[in-house]
Amino acid sequence: MAFRPLHDRVLVRRIEADQKTAGGIIIPDSAQEKPSEGEIVATGSGAKAEDGTVTPLDVRAGDRVLFGKWSGTEVKLDGEDLLIMKESDIMGIIS
Amino acid sequence: MAFRPLHDRVLVRRIEADQKTAGGIIIPDSAQEKPSEGEIVATGSGAKAEDGTVTPLDVRAGDRVLFGKWSGTEVKLDGEDLLIMKESDIMGIIS
Amino acid sequence: MAFRPLHDRVLVRRIEADQKTAGGIIIPDSAQEKPSEGEIVATGSGAKAEDGTVTPLDVRAGDRVLFGKWSGTEVKLDGEDLLIMKESDIMGIIS
Amino acid sequence: MAFRPLHDRVLVRRIEADQKTAGGIIIPDSAQEKPSEGEIVATGSGAKAEDGTVTPLDVRAGDRVLFGKWSGTEVKLDGEDLLIMKESDIMGIIS
Amino acid sequence: MAFRPLHDRVLVRRIEADQKTAGGIIIPDSAQEKPSEGEIVATGSGAKAEDGTVTPLDVRAGDRVLFGKWSGTEVKLDGEDLLIMKESDIMGIIS
Amino acid sequence: MAFRPLHDRVLVRRIEADQKTAGGIIIPDSAQEKPSEGEIVATGSGAKAEDGTVTPLDVRAGDRVLFGKWSGTEVKLDGEDLLIMKESDIMGIIS
Amino acid sequence: MAFRPLHDRVLVRRIEADQKTAGGIIIPDSAQEKPSEGEIVATGSGAKAEDGTVTPLDVRAGDRVLFGKWSGTEVKLDGEDLLIMKESDIMGIIS
Repeated sequence: MAFRPLHDRVLVRRIEADQKTAGGIIIPDSAQEKPSEGEIVATGSGAKAEDGTVTPLDVRAGDRVLFGKWSGTEVKLDGEDLLIMKESDIMGIIS
Repeated sequence: MAFRPLHDRVLVRRIEADQKTAGGIIIPDSAQEKPSEGEIVATGSGAKAEDGTVTPLDVRAGDRVLFGKWSGTEVKLDGEDLLIMKESDIMGIIS
Repeated sequence: MAFRPLHDRVLVRRIEADQKTAGGIIIPDSAQEKPSEGEIVATGSGAKAEDGTVTPLDVRAGDRVLFGKWSGTEVKLDGEDLLIMKESDIMGIIS
Repeated sequence: MAFRPLHDRVLVRRIEADQKTAGGIIIPDSAQEKPSEGEIVATGSGAKAEDGTVTPLDVRAGDRVLFGKWSGTEVKLDGEDLLIMKESDIMGIIS
Repeated sequence: MAFRPLHDRVLVRRIEADQKTAGGIIIPDSAQEKPSEGEIVATGSGAKAEDGTVTPLDVRAGDRVLFGKWSGTEVKLDGEDLLIMKESDIMGIIS
Repeated sequence: MAFRPLHDRVLVRRIEADQKTAGGIIIPDSAQEKPSEGEIVATGSGAKAEDGTVTPLDVRAGDRVLFGKWSGTEVKLDGEDLLIMKESDIMGIIS
Repeated sequence: MAFRPLHDRVLVRRIEADQKTAGGIIIPDSAQEKPSEGEIVATGSGAKAEDGTVTPLDVRAGDRVLFGKWSGTEVKLDGEDLLIMKESDIMGIIS
């Protein structure tokens, strides 16, 4: 099942931060802040201006990105928890 | 009776999520989140800019879409419960 | 007495939904939701952009329309209760 | 003393609704809704866009209009109570 | 000392309304509404659009104007209490 | 150390109002309103429109200006307390 | 690991203000206001207008800048605490 985001939306897979401390102790889930790193899974065709012109997005499937901790809407696609957000919620690309 | 949405609105039929758990136990209605998947039934002719130009929509009748859980206005047409929402409430197309 | 709405406004006559249940029992008024169906009585000449260009409306006198339950301003013209609303409050046309 | 409204403003004289019921009984003032009918006394030269272009108004001195019950600012000119409001507060013209 | 308002601002001298009733009784200050009539003392060079074009104002020094009762910022220039407001706070010109 | 404000921002040195009454009595600080007069120390290169065009500012270093009492952000540069504000916070120029 | 901010965002390293008073006494952390000075680490390619045109930023990597005390989102990149903010949060450049 493929999902194609509309316009300036992107589909993001959250990358869980490493859950061990430096000393190897596993931190229980509630003791950590939710990570805000992810991988772009799919992108819309671009932002659509009021006059209909479409501007392609600057992120691409596969990009590793940072996004605001509370950005996006959670969806379940093929049993996997993903996030749909607007490109403007993406703060930058890690390379 | 046909319904033609105005401008950038679309008419959506909600697709009820499968109501059984993996093990086949039927979940009573209040225990589930309302699904946010649907099928486009009809679309408006397009978003109308201030200068009158019309930009056709990117979704089409028959498309399976995801939309925000609380999007749209419920209407009853020919006895069927449907939703009218703006295309901007549609997050993407499932194919 | 004729009323000509200004700009992108329309004059709407509310169509009362049938007030009997399937079994013919009359439902007292407070037990029903107020209907949101109506007929366009008159329309303005069109939306006026900041630069003065006028874009004609997409609804016409006689159209049967759906509109948000709480849309519009009630007016009494020639003793009849009507609604003035903006075309953007009209969700679509029933045909 | 003449008053010339600026830009897209109009000067309106409220027309008091007939204060008798059909049977001729005078209703004390607090028992009625304030009327929202008026007559245009003077109009501004037109709405001014950000680039300076002026779009003439669609109402004219002498027009009988409907306006929102709480629209406008009350002013006293030559001892007469009048209202200054924007043309966008005018819902339509009665003819 | 001269004051030149910036852009679409104007400098206004409030004109105190006549403080006697018809019968000549002086009304103590707190019993009256503050007047909203004034005289334009100086005007800015005009509203500046985002692209830098300047549109001259429609009021001129010396114009007698009406403005909203709570408009403007009070300033003391050469010991005189004046008001700085935007031209959009001016409702019209008395002539 | 030089400070160059970005875009439509200006750097302002507050001019303390004369702290004596006419009769020469020094008013303790808390008994006066904070002055809103200042001198432009530096200006940005101009307001930047969405399309990238830059419109030079209308105030210049050295101008004596009035600004809203609560405008701007206080900064300490080279030990001196200054204010950074937008040109739109400047109400006019004293000359 | 490199981080490339999107559009009009910049990556900023906060510069801690000198933590000693003139007399050389170290001030405990909670007794100081958080500094609002920083150094630009990386910048986006520019602000993107609705029609897709990109306007390069006016700050560059290496610039020492002032920014609002509460601006930006804190991120940890390669173990270092940095801030991502929009160029519009930058008040000016220190040189």
